Amino acid sequence: MSASHEQAGDLMRGGSLVPPWVKDAVRATLAPVVRLALALHITPNTVTVAGFGIVAVAAFVVGSGQLLAGALVVTAGSLLDAVDGALARATGGGTPFGSFLDSTLDRAGEAVLYVGIAAYYLNQAAPAWPVIAALLALAGSFMVSYARARAEGIGLSAAVGLAQRPERIVLVVLGLGLAGLGFRPALVAILWIIAALTAATTAQRIWHVWRTTSVESR
Amino acid sequence: MSASHEQAGDLMRGGSLVPPWVKDAVRATLAPVVRLALALHITPNTVTVAGFGIVAVAAFVVGSGQLLAGALVVTAGSLLDAVDGALARATGGGTPFGSFLDSTLDRAGEAVLYVGIAAYYLNQAAPAWPVIAALLALAGSFMVSYARARAEGIGLSAAVGLAQRPERIVLVVLGLGLAGLGFRPALVAILWIIAALTAATTAQRIWHVWRTTSVESR
Repeated sequence: MSASHEQAGDLMRGGSLVPPWVKDAVRATLAPVVRLALALHITPNTVTVAGFGIVAVAAFVVGSGQLLAGALVVTAGSLLDAVDGALARATGGGTPFGSFLDSTLDRAGEAVLYVGIAAYYLNQAAPAWPVIAALLALAGSFMVSYARARAEGIGLSAAVGLAQRPERIVLVVLGLGLAGLGFRPALVAILWIIAALTAATTAQRIWHVWRTTSVESR
Repeated sequence: MSASHEQAGDLMRGGSLVPPWVKDAVRATLAPVVRLALALHITPNTVTVAGFGIVAVAAFVVGSGQLLAGALVVTAGSLLDAVDGALARATGGGTPFGSFLDSTLDRAGEAVLYVGIAAYYLNQAAPAWPVIAALLALAGSFMVSYARARAEGIGLSAAVGLAQRPERIVLVVLGLGLAGLGFRPALVAILWIIAALTAATTAQRIWHVWRTTSVESR
């Protein structure tokens, strides 16, 4: 598989379990935003950085205890994350740096969001297990993305598994939203689910790379 | 720069700020271990997995409050991490899967170690800031490694910066050791230093990839 194919796959978020009609709906909703960005000559990389900035604000909002507001701001930031790819395609395709910046700041966004969630629990009574869950969810999310990036570094694709980024973001927004509406245990439960799914996906990707490379060397 | 060159560079831990004489001393110390592993027909990948297992034990030891013992076990696990590379070279060079497994489990090891440190602080009074520091040190360490892996995915090298893995491990072992010897503030201070250095190194790597790709596209 060529490097350029992998970059295109990355920009298209290939291999996701989010149904295609959801992606189409998101794209249709964001089309006016893309047209506005084009008219204002805003570059895809500016949108990428703005998306990270919004998620950082969301993390601050969550850390200050406003979970429902945080869920809404995370949603806004994550939708912007779909705009940069669409904008790149509309302006003649993304650059390698754009693809690199997009996924690197996606990781930074996940990191600050979990720091915000941990800060929220550290302000509560008995924070120990929720904070451990948040740490494991962050570490697992990073492991999933790192395994993929590292596999692409040796020329393989490893975009397999249940807990890819769109699924992780939907889960964490759901947890923040439910907890913000008063159903507090939902967020801790979802943090443990993310921790378990990302650990399983990491193992799956290591296994996938092992199988692929052992077939190739036969 | 070719992919195979980068893999070799990865196996050699190129671009590190740890002085060459330290690396030579470590290699000389580990030579009998490498010979033993060769005699017992232990594969480099087995050593990699064992090294991760030892770091996971260290994380548990740290989490249970034995910081000095934890520092010693981390040191043992990290030294084993130098054995897998030496063993791979002694048995005719590493495989792409070996290189992938090595760096993926290095990340997993860093993750469990910081979970152990966070668990240690969660058992203490007033854990909030130390836990946030541990989270930021973990996130920053991952960002540094992710930025490099992602850069290699688009055919670039990004092994630049102050806070690469050997430096991070030396710092965290130093913090654990000093805190274990009774100088408790050292560990929190070092977690903040790791958080700051890794954030700076991540920014440096993004900048490096931006410069490299913008020169190429001229």
